Amino acid sequence: MNTFGENIKLTVFGQSHAACIGAVIDGLPAGTPIDMEYIDNIMKLRAPGQSRLATKRKEPDKVEFISGVVDRKTVGASVCAVIYNSDTHSSDYSNLLNKPRPSHADYPAMIRYGKNYDLRGGGQFSGRLTAPLCIAGAIALYLLEKKGIFIASHVLSVGKISDVPFSPTDDECELLKNLSQMSFAVIDSEVKEKMSEEILEASKRLDSVGGVIECKVIGLPAGVGEPMFGGMENAISKIIFGIPAVKGIEFGAGFEGSKMYGSQYNDSYYYDNDGKIRTYTNNTGGICGGMTTGMPLIFRAAVKPTPSIASVQKTVDLSKNENTEIQINGRHDPCIAVRACTVVRAAAAFAVLDMLCAQNDINNILK
Amino acid sequence: MNTFGENIKLTVFGQSHAACIGAVIDGLPAGTPIDMEYIDNIMKLRAPGQSRLATKRKEPDKVEFISGVVDRKTVGASVCAVIYNSDTHSSDYSNLLNKPRPSHADYPAMIRYGKNYDLRGGGQFSGRLTAPLCIAGAIALYLLEKKGIFIASHVLSVGKISDVPFSPTDDECELLKNLSQMSFAVIDSEVKEKMSEEILEASKRLDSVGGVIECKVIGLPAGVGEPMFGGMENAISKIIFGIPAVKGIEFGAGFEGSKMYGSQYNDSYYYDNDGKIRTYTNNTGGICGGMTTGMPLIFRAAVKPTPSIASVQKTVDLSKNENTEIQINGRHDPCIAVRACTVVRAAAAFAVLDMLCAQNDINNILK
Amino acid sequence: MNTFGENIKLTVFGQSHAACIGAVIDGLPAGTPIDMEYIDNIMKLRAPGQSRLATKRKEPDKVEFISGVVDRKTVGASVCAVIYNSDTHSSDYSNLLNKPRPSHADYPAMIRYGKNYDLRGGGQFSGRLTAPLCIAGAIALYLLEKKGIFIASHVLSVGKISDVPFSPTDDECELLKNLSQMSFAVIDSEVKEKMSEEILEASKRLDSVGGVIECKVIGLPAGVGEPMFGGMENAISKIIFGIPAVKGIEFGAGFEGSKMYGSQYNDSYYYDNDGKIRTYTNNTGGICGGMTTGMPLIFRAAVKPTPSIASVQKTVDLSKNENTEIQINGRHDPCIAVRACTVVRAAAAFAVLDMLCAQNDINNILK
Amino acid sequence: MNTFGENIKLTVFGQSHAACIGAVIDGLPAGTPIDMEYIDNIMKLRAPGQSRLATKRKEPDKVEFISGVVDRKTVGASVCAVIYNSDTHSSDYSNLLNKPRPSHADYPAMIRYGKNYDLRGGGQFSGRLTAPLCIAGAIALYLLEKKGIFIASHVLSVGKISDVPFSPTDDECELLKNLSQMSFAVIDSEVKEKMSEEILEASKRLDSVGGVIECKVIGLPAGVGEPMFGGMENAISKIIFGIPAVKGIEFGAGFEGSKMYGSQYNDSYYYDNDGKIRTYTNNTGGICGGMTTGMPLIFRAAVKPTPSIASVQKTVDLSKNENTEIQINGRHDPCIAVRACTVVRAAAAFAVLDMLCAQNDINNILK
Repeated sequence: MNTFGENIKLTVFGQSHAACIGAVIDGLPAGTPIDMEYIDNIMKLRAPGQSRLATKRKEPDKVEFISGVVDRKTVGASVCAVIYNSDTHSSDYSNLLNKPRPSHADYPAMIRYGKNYDLRGGGQFSGRLTAPLCIAGAIALYLLEKKGIFIASHVLSVGKISDVPFSPTDDECELLKNLSQMSFAVIDSEVKEKMSEEILEASKRLDSVGGVIECKVIGLPAGVGEPMFGGMENAISKIIFGIPAVKGIEFGAGFEGSKMYGSQYNDSYYYDNDGKIRTYTNNTGGICGGMTTGMPLIFRAAVKPTPSIASVQKTVDLSKNENTEIQINGRHDPCIAVRACTVVRAAAAFAVLDMLCAQNDINNILK
Repeated sequence: MNTFGENIKLTVFGQSHAACIGAVIDGLPAGTPIDMEYIDNIMKLRAPGQSRLATKRKEPDKVEFISGVVDRKTVGASVCAVIYNSDTHSSDYSNLLNKPRPSHADYPAMIRYGKNYDLRGGGQFSGRLTAPLCIAGAIALYLLEKKGIFIASHVLSVGKISDVPFSPTDDECELLKNLSQMSFAVIDSEVKEKMSEEILEASKRLDSVGGVIECKVIGLPAGVGEPMFGGMENAISKIIFGIPAVKGIEFGAGFEGSKMYGSQYNDSYYYDNDGKIRTYTNNTGGICGGMTTGMPLIFRAAVKPTPSIASVQKTVDLSKNENTEIQINGRHDPCIAVRACTVVRAAAAFAVLDMLCAQNDINNILK
Repeated sequence: MNTFGENIKLTVFGQSHAACIGAVIDGLPAGTPIDMEYIDNIMKLRAPGQSRLATKRKEPDKVEFISGVVDRKTVGASVCAVIYNSDTHSSDYSNLLNKPRPSHADYPAMIRYGKNYDLRGGGQFSGRLTAPLCIAGAIALYLLEKKGIFIASHVLSVGKISDVPFSPTDDECELLKNLSQMSFAVIDSEVKEKMSEEILEASKRLDSVGGVIECKVIGLPAGVGEPMFGGMENAISKIIFGIPAVKGIEFGAGFEGSKMYGSQYNDSYYYDNDGKIRTYTNNTGGICGGMTTGMPLIFRAAVKPTPSIASVQKTVDLSKNENTEIQINGRHDPCIAVRACTVVRAAAAFAVLDMLCAQNDINNILK
Repeated sequence: MNTFGENIKLTVFGQSHAACIGAVIDGLPAGTPIDMEYIDNIMKLRAPGQSRLATKRKEPDKVEFISGVVDRKTVGASVCAVIYNSDTHSSDYSNLLNKPRPSHADYPAMIRYGKNYDLRGGGQFSGRLTAPLCIAGAIALYLLEKKGIFIASHVLSVGKISDVPFSPTDDECELLKNLSQMSFAVIDSEVKEKMSEEILEASKRLDSVGGVIECKVIGLPAGVGEPMFGGMENAISKIIFGIPAVKGIEFGAGFEGSKMYGSQYNDSYYYDNDGKIRTYTNNTGGICGGMTTGMPLIFRAAVKPTPSIASVQKTVDLSKNENTEIQINGRHDPCIAVRACTVVRAAAAFAVLDMLCAQNDINNILK
């Protein structure tokens, strides 16, 4: 349910308007460095209230490790990190009781949980729950970087405006490092301007807009991943669909690849000058049979437009059994894709770390 | 790894050229009907050798239940079903030793498993492993139909040729029933002709072609699904990426939805004449917050072109550390999407059944 | 690792000297009552500092629900409860660095976790971690009582002094209710006096003493439990061995039963006057084939003497590679069995609740 | 349910009178040797029909690997091994319909599974299901021996007749090797004679008798095991209670230890002449805090008398709602402990191997 991972287990807890949101991470090796500055930086990139493009709520998202960490290192016990909620305006939600917001979790949650559902701020289905996911992801990103594995993401599109895609075959080290420091990560700065305008326009019209996030992992060795349901695509998609608003995922050429012929699609192997095996193209996105090929791992996630829009919308009143309208107050991002970009990066890192651990036991038990 | 499911657990075993492929299903309630005719029909729809569009290998894919079933009903023990492999031409693969086929699992598997990897027929990464998945799926489909839940799929596109998509809001009962009996399921029969030609053309050119499969589930109640990593999208994507060649998945409007504004995308609720709550549009594909809305659940899976093509391809010789070429013999489908269509349907059914079980315990423990 | 449960998942976190200890419980149905008074009462029964027989540390063990609970009911999100640590004397442990305490987790933990191990207070291996287990258990006890299932335990022996055992066949409702309110639960009050003397004597000699806890569950329907590794004995033993100091468990006649003949041991069925099926004897402890028989479920747990004793003990100095001696300061229970009695009861309740949930989905999916 | 293991997953399937019983083992590293002779030897030690002390059914228990193994090595795919059932006398069970055998799984299984329960031979609760457990255990035993870890067990007692216990502190290598070749493993050959007589006497009286099995693991490094619910005792007890008829387990001094004072019980560390850290005593059975100490790991399992006895027994007739009597035909072991001795050894091996794998990933990820 709220747990992800086969080897390192992440359990997320909290609701938007609970005292806390947080994460328990079980299985991190003792001695894992917990670099607070690094984590705070990731949290800051995800945090709301940073620009005119995002919600005006100001949440410092201050991470506290309440167990499992001593002197900035894990001790082998399960790690618990929390963020105390603040700046919550519960009154904003009083008018939504029994009136589910379109394309929100409200209606199914009301059916699923009945009157016990804590709908304030979206309850456990709130985008706020991605903050604990980012804590776990930040720990993973830091560990992976130490092993030479680097992950970055950018906003590939906002509505119909598209950024330059990642190169499927080159590592693009510098680019990835730059992107990983941006709160609105886009490769082409002119496109970024246009995207910003598009978002502001939508916001002015009391509307929102969707987008696509592209994520790239470099430095992975070949052969990471397990058969059938245990492959890279299975693991990454399972964690990425844990981010509210994600409605699609594709690896490498993805849906475009389905329009190709095998002779175009197939990624032929060759020995590069440095003796490394590479492929001329990378339509598989660095994954074959669920396992890494050693080429960059690339995937894209489709993010729907923020369902909370300020204009009047049709809905039903469950208490009166009749059709009605609502207007959603509260402070919401006009384009979630911007902030979700960091979450996708962090979530991917956690999935990759978990996979690498599976690999290790397999390789070592027979020695 | 080879196991899927939280409440009903499916473990798949076998390799393309092992004595058997099969599945163990643990957690099926005692008394679950095992309708052999129904199962054989699903297996036949998936089976190779049925038309000029598919591989000429003839495998009867005869399912035998070797445990857990007495008098066509489960007894509460774990169910084991096997298909004995036959008609395998292991010699076809001798020339591939150390020469990984492009876009196949070969190269990462050689790295992952070393010289122990059984590459004949693709080993455990073979499409043949989808046959056990279909056994489990067929049991689920039968059970779900009894509960009024129906699932069907069709080949939405082959290369650049597209079929009519499912209606997002109507149930289309009749259409779904018709599609579920077709070995090459397409809504528009003229499109089917064109797709067939496209596949034969590719085949003649010693090439292959990709496609997209669309799947629809009707009859689901609202509120099925768990939070965060336990949602419908997480579960369905985890099982669907267990099908080799799937490289992307999207729910509802998916990637197209990311280009929309919230005011266009949001699915507004209304009370229908029959008193049921419906939505005017269904861009979320019947899933909000990981839970069903009661509207048709719709997703699409992108299938890459068959990587095994008969034309000469570049690759490396791992034993000689040099670049080389290969030509793949053997009998392969020029378009996997056609047969994978049944697998997607079956896999979705198993994921849906597993989810419904989670629901039941939750609802009943407090009574 | 730190997670227990198939249907309702409990994850425990914290170390003895971390900021917090706590538990995340995932899968509790929305609307589960969280009765703080009931929980606090269980915590009080387990808490140290209550009598001259227990450690003098005073820990209020104040439970705070930081997520998943609104208005004393669960909302369907994962529940996180914490207890902030206080009254910790970290300096007490400085002399133990590199000198593992005999029969403590120290030595293997030093090997397992290296210098990162937080040995203060026993780190994650401390008996304090049973407090979160009690929170989860208290929630389960409350729920089970509502369903007519009652659990109690008593200290069956301290050293060589033995209490009256539970009746294997009678429910003993009143007795169970009385025992569940005692912080030192013994059936025969004269025996309790003798046990108290034995414990005080040991304490005066700077020594400790072991004991056995007997636990009884009444009101369970027949047929609860899963095959093979999913049986009642498997689940209960798995959670009970999560209590530090437990070194043995037996169900029904247990080890004594292994000395019997089948004709003595077998529990013959009969219809009782009220039409219920009962057994004349109950040597199986209410469990056959891993499933409940509807008779009282009875098990006993062997608790070793507290390893922390104040007298001088031999050990090694890992930093100097030489033999040495230590004297353990700090405040410790001379007989853990007394306080562990509540923990055994609570842990058993959680295992039973988890099992009952498995049952529900099985029974309902085919309806 | 029928699955055990965190890192290497064993799923057992089959019923006593199904076509097959078998096991799927997922997660074995590619290249794991599958030594058929070694496995067959273990199966033979467990097999019935070997002596006048055991049931007269003759089952060759011929193991066939139907997937995952090529040229006597695993290939990385999940391994499936089956034993085809033969020599089943289903008619023997016709008189038991609706009349549950005392202390058998029958009654709870009839409640749990209803009329679908396959009671022939005990269905999925039959002791025959320990044969697949032995296949998995045999693979583990072989692997562990290669790593210098050796496991053996003996029948410590039959009824009131007791064998010499293992030395808690010495390795006793030779003794362990000898015991591991015996189908009726007892240390003192005179005791073995007495035990044999006791069993034959019981058998003549149409009765059965219980026993205790002692198991010892040597060669384990210190520090193997996980915290809380992931410790050695948790894992071993979970798998050992998967053996029907086991009703108790204790580690080291176990229940006797609960009668001791801490000053007697505590195992003091010292540097031995070879520089290795050992303990003077080993009352903890080589496990502290759930982790190994490097000393021999010792546990005992209590086995109840075979519930199937040939004398007349009281029971109920569920179809008529009345008390009745039954006489059990069929061929049964008068003392299960004799054959269960091999099963305990094999099961322990699988649990130990699974634990060692957990260890490996933890140690390697940070390198």
